[in-house]
Amino acid sequence: MNFASDNTSGASPEIIAAVSAANTGAAMPYGADDITARVAQRLNEVFETQAVSYPVATGTAANSLALAAGTPPWGAVYCHGDSHINRDECGAPELFTGGAKLVPLEGDDGKVTPAVLEAALAGAKPGFVHQVQPAMLSLTNATEAGTVYTPDEVAELAGIAHAHGLKVHMDGARFANAAASLGCTPAELTWKAGVDVLAFGATKNGALAAEAVVFFDRELAENVGYRRKRAGHLFSKMRFLSAQLEAYLSDGLWLANASHANAMAARLAAGLSHVPGCRLVHPVQANELFVEMPAATADALSDGGCVFYRWKPGDPVSTRFVTSFNSDPADVDRAVKLARSAAGQSAAE
Amino acid sequence: MNFASDNTSGASPEIIAAVSAANTGAAMPYGADDITARVAQRLNEVFETQAVSYPVATGTAANSLALAAGTPPWGAVYCHGDSHINRDECGAPELFTGGAKLVPLEGDDGKVTPAVLEAALAGAKPGFVHQVQPAMLSLTNATEAGTVYTPDEVAELAGIAHAHGLKVHMDGARFANAAASLGCTPAELTWKAGVDVLAFGATKNGALAAEAVVFFDRELAENVGYRRKRAGHLFSKMRFLSAQLEAYLSDGLWLANASHANAMAARLAAGLSHVPGCRLVHPVQANELFVEMPAATADALSDGGCVFYRWKPGDPVSTRFVTSFNSDPADVDRAVKLARSAAGQSAAE
Amino acid sequence: MNFASDNTSGASPEIIAAVSAANTGAAMPYGADDITARVAQRLNEVFETQAVSYPVATGTAANSLALAAGTPPWGAVYCHGDSHINRDECGAPELFTGGAKLVPLEGDDGKVTPAVLEAALAGAKPGFVHQVQPAMLSLTNATEAGTVYTPDEVAELAGIAHAHGLKVHMDGARFANAAASLGCTPAELTWKAGVDVLAFGATKNGALAAEAVVFFDRELAENVGYRRKRAGHLFSKMRFLSAQLEAYLSDGLWLANASHANAMAARLAAGLSHVPGCRLVHPVQANELFVEMPAATADALSDGGCVFYRWKPGDPVSTRFVTSFNSDPADVDRAVKLARSAAGQSAAE
Amino acid sequence: MNFASDNTSGASPEIIAAVSAANTGAAMPYGADDITARVAQRLNEVFETQAVSYPVATGTAANSLALAAGTPPWGAVYCHGDSHINRDECGAPELFTGGAKLVPLEGDDGKVTPAVLEAALAGAKPGFVHQVQPAMLSLTNATEAGTVYTPDEVAELAGIAHAHGLKVHMDGARFANAAASLGCTPAELTWKAGVDVLAFGATKNGALAAEAVVFFDRELAENVGYRRKRAGHLFSKMRFLSAQLEAYLSDGLWLANASHANAMAARLAAGLSHVPGCRLVHPVQANELFVEMPAATADALSDGGCVFYRWKPGDPVSTRFVTSFNSDPADVDRAVKLARSAAGQSAAE
Repeated sequence: MNFASDNTSGASPEIIAAVSAANTGAAMPYGADDITARVAQRLNEVFETQAVSYPVATGTAANSLALAAGTPPWGAVYCHGDSHINRDECGAPELFTGGAKLVPLEGDDGKVTPAVLEAALAGAKPGFVHQVQPAMLSLTNATEAGTVYTPDEVAELAGIAHAHGLKVHMDGARFANAAASLGCTPAELTWKAGVDVLAFGATKNGALAAEAVVFFDRELAENVGYRRKRAGHLFSKMRFLSAQLEAYLSDGLWLANASHANAMAARLAAGLSHVPGCRLVHPVQANELFVEMPAATADALSDGGCVFYRWKPGDPVSTRFVTSFNSDPADVDRAVKLARSAAGQSAAE
Repeated sequence: MNFASDNTSGASPEIIAAVSAANTGAAMPYGADDITARVAQRLNEVFETQAVSYPVATGTAANSLALAAGTPPWGAVYCHGDSHINRDECGAPELFTGGAKLVPLEGDDGKVTPAVLEAALAGAKPGFVHQVQPAMLSLTNATEAGTVYTPDEVAELAGIAHAHGLKVHMDGARFANAAASLGCTPAELTWKAGVDVLAFGATKNGALAAEAVVFFDRELAENVGYRRKRAGHLFSKMRFLSAQLEAYLSDGLWLANASHANAMAARLAAGLSHVPGCRLVHPVQANELFVEMPAATADALSDGGCVFYRWKPGDPVSTRFVTSFNSDPADVDRAVKLARSAAGQSAAE
Repeated sequence: MNFASDNTSGASPEIIAAVSAANTGAAMPYGADDITARVAQRLNEVFETQAVSYPVATGTAANSLALAAGTPPWGAVYCHGDSHINRDECGAPELFTGGAKLVPLEGDDGKVTPAVLEAALAGAKPGFVHQVQPAMLSLTNATEAGTVYTPDEVAELAGIAHAHGLKVHMDGARFANAAASLGCTPAELTWKAGVDVLAFGATKNGALAAEAVVFFDRELAENVGYRRKRAGHLFSKMRFLSAQLEAYLSDGLWLANASHANAMAARLAAGLSHVPGCRLVHPVQANELFVEMPAATADALSDGGCVFYRWKPGDPVSTRFVTSFNSDPADVDRAVKLARSAAGQSAAE
Repeated sequence: MNFASDNTSGASPEIIAAVSAANTGAAMPYGADDITARVAQRLNEVFETQAVSYPVATGTAANSLALAAGTPPWGAVYCHGDSHINRDECGAPELFTGGAKLVPLEGDDGKVTPAVLEAALAGAKPGFVHQVQPAMLSLTNATEAGTVYTPDEVAELAGIAHAHGLKVHMDGARFANAAASLGCTPAELTWKAGVDVLAFGATKNGALAAEAVVFFDRELAENVGYRRKRAGHLFSKMRFLSAQLEAYLSDGLWLANASHANAMAARLAAGLSHVPGCRLVHPVQANELFVEMPAATADALSDGGCVFYRWKPGDPVSTRFVTSFNSDPADVDRAVKLARSAAGQSAAE
């Protein structure tokens, strides 16, 4: 019953197998191997376009490289205040961009709204050297609140951004979960909606350590090779990184994994929503649940062996549960049962 | 017959197996897992001291984090002009340190000499705000020229560095090759000789993508956790990175792999040194050979299916051959035979 | 009638004279001259303590050097969202610190409140490598809204900051205006209230281009000499910079200048506050006024030759007026008269 | 008898007077004033072209902004090993460029030669992501050795640089001395010879603190406004900076000052060259002399009140003398007399 993070899960067996299989003979290093070439081609097929892609090993690197490609050191990146790039990367975007500024925006359920974005951009002063210059909009999909932007929502926000000369970045650490949740094509959720560069995640959804920065705006990619190298993210034995992505993109594994994780989240949400005192803080649209619950209930879950994060202390306590590609439905049901039982006891006291 | 780089080789089967074996159950992310704890302990045993270690995936990251730990943005890092950090990391040390300066030193066979180091430090002006301040000495062992520093040589250079207040970094991308070549203990070649921080390589010697930054001077490690994270080098599913290092350090695999690579280099050197027109540019003390040879000989090798790098064009041409943990002695012998044959033909023409 | 900025004024005649007078004979460069030594001593007297001070030419440099001294690249600087360092320095703090993050806080009248600061710090996670680490609190006094923090208010905020391990920076671009307004000693408003480093402004208050970074926490100053040099802010003919500060600090010029500017702001505020349709947005406690007024009134002022900034368009329009050390009371009265007249006409229409 | 540096001199009376004269009435800040506009126009006239210019206060800032405009963080700047940007700016170019690499070249008398430059560029690998990319050539004129590049020499070097896609920067901290020495037009020594951006110095030659970055390649200037601001080098009361440049460029003051300094250097060189034991290390072509002399002679000069720098200790000792726009011929003669006298005594002992 480990719902601490989708990072606590291991890797899909198919992906482990692909890594093993890649260990055959010599291969040119630094991405000049066959597997890396096939991954680039496969990404183009999946996204139905000619993109430029760079495999890297972490989401932090993928996001930061994408942002650095589109933001000068005196640029501003507009993003949700709770976005991972703003809160949970210890300043990586600032390091990679040479000191650009992330401008935090407010919005319910982890989502930037057109009105808030418009207002923020209205306050910016293009060409005014005293202030950082609007450069990018960053959207996380699925969001850090476990919700999703629809293609229409992305298109509206990207339209505003483009009208002001900004490029659009999507943090897709859980892109698969968003795509699976929405049932749209990867193209519809990205470049057709105006996304210029996507950090396409695989690690949280079954890879060991693999992401791809996918540039739909290929001009943006011009110097990413140098940036990747000098950040230490160019792998010498790249085949082992690319092999993960190839397996991830084969036979629909990436969507199957995400669909399972989403289903487990929905199952857990359905169960907990009927537990007295439990309240879902955000709609559950991907694989994360944010649940406010009595401290006694949270304690009972912990005591029963259920692992999850406590966001904010207090009573009720604010908690987060994350499901994964290999979450066991039986674990989900046991967690719900523990919560129900605790609530019953609590009510009986 | 691929001698292009030790990066063209795949991974040791034992390491692949360890990665597979690590895929069991849930594990806390970001290094809070059991395998990572065991690797730290194992490194302490191998180096016979209490070090602080950080697994990362690339040598560029390992070196740059080590340098950033010991060099302020206004610091100077003294290193050989041909060192990897100076020539082949696209400015990664500059990025990680916030703009420190690498001061290139000359020296035969890829090695810094005490006299050159003393002279360089004599020209520095501690406390003089107009100039960058001496901060670190960086030594590569085995060197980029395929030679090694002995423990005594390291100790003499480190002694000079420490006397001037510098910290000592060792780029150990091929540390195993140096240790195997010298037959000394890892401790003798590092902290006992004055090394403060080691970038301990595994990737070139059989891992998929794994290195460890090993701080013998533990105070230097104080902020490396933040630096690693904001550079995108903190792996969420760290167990898969640590599993590589654990296997690498088990049952002497790291030294056995390096010994094999060194033996193959010696075999190739012995063979080529008797080929008319071929000249070893540097002593062959690890797993790299730099060979000057007639262009016709080089062409014949290429035509025969032997892969290697041509450093500088011309006739004779300057070439590099790198052997690996899994180089096949038969391949070595075939390469020598090709060269001999070409030299014979050439002589006969 | 130029109320656009205190930067539109020239310099105090006393300061111009001091620059001329400094042009005598040879003087050692880079701050090794007598005048610079005297300025350091004079600052110690004015602030009644042993500080370490660095003259520089711009407020951006003064603030950024101060912040860089107390914030690592992975640090967070808590500041008001409207603070100059956050909004009007084009990312200078990010450049000087190597990419630290400014965390914008809300607060009426340009002032951070204890409750907001406490809440922000409660959300921070010391030692958690995923997030930037609380490093500094920055307060502007007088604030960007033309208000002031009292010594007690500074002390309460600094107390919170220190309790969380933060250093306290004060942006004193208009420090003289604050001190003159409050009638307290410079010491009471700074180190006695917990300020660790002050950017002590002179440019806006009568100098040509001169500020001083004054470190009350002298350990913070350790590396500022290097940082100043590599940012290009170490002046070779420093005497001409220091001469400005010496004159500024002589015979109470700095406080006299500020008192005049404050008095002119109060006079303008008193006048405009009685003009129909005009509303002071913030209390007027220093030398800036923020006035909401009918667009027709603003237009009449402009047409009459009065220069000021229009913050936000609309009707009413949001405007800013800044008075200076040499603002002419007659100009103030003319501006009020113009506004009154416009309001009367408007009312009569 | 102060020959320590041209920075020990004060300012030209004409320039002090211009600063005073600029203190009239209100002026729009940040360079939107009339004087700044006139300076831009005047620079265009002096250089006989349409340039884009930015006044700043220090040479370090001028050089670093120029380099940052033409070099990405992964770029290489080729320069003489003894150049000021490489040795005496504490890493300022690295800070401003975001970590670019200065590649030190050798060359007699402080000058880069075509052969050395060609060889360095031949070793670079455009497009190879492992290595920093050739971006700029930087030449200092007059050089740090007190010599000058002729227009033809600049043109040859710039031609090589341009052929490899590099931009050409000239560090003109002593540009006036070079131009006066060569008797060529400013245009001939810069853009007509292929210089893309010049750091045009005034401080050492009579200003208080004033330089201009002059972009002949106007596209390079695109983002310099942002870079200047975020480095803290945009002056609010810019008129006082621009007034210095205006006076400097009026009535040939800049060339007259430089000619005087050069003449004093020639006079001192002529005198010392006949002193037994004294040897000029480099040709004296501008306003700096490097003189090897017996330690006893140097001591006698010091004892007699002559101030100069001792570059390297020993006997003979290596010394530097710098003359200035206001060096007194009598001081020069007294210095020569002291040296002669010391040599005579020495010989007599």
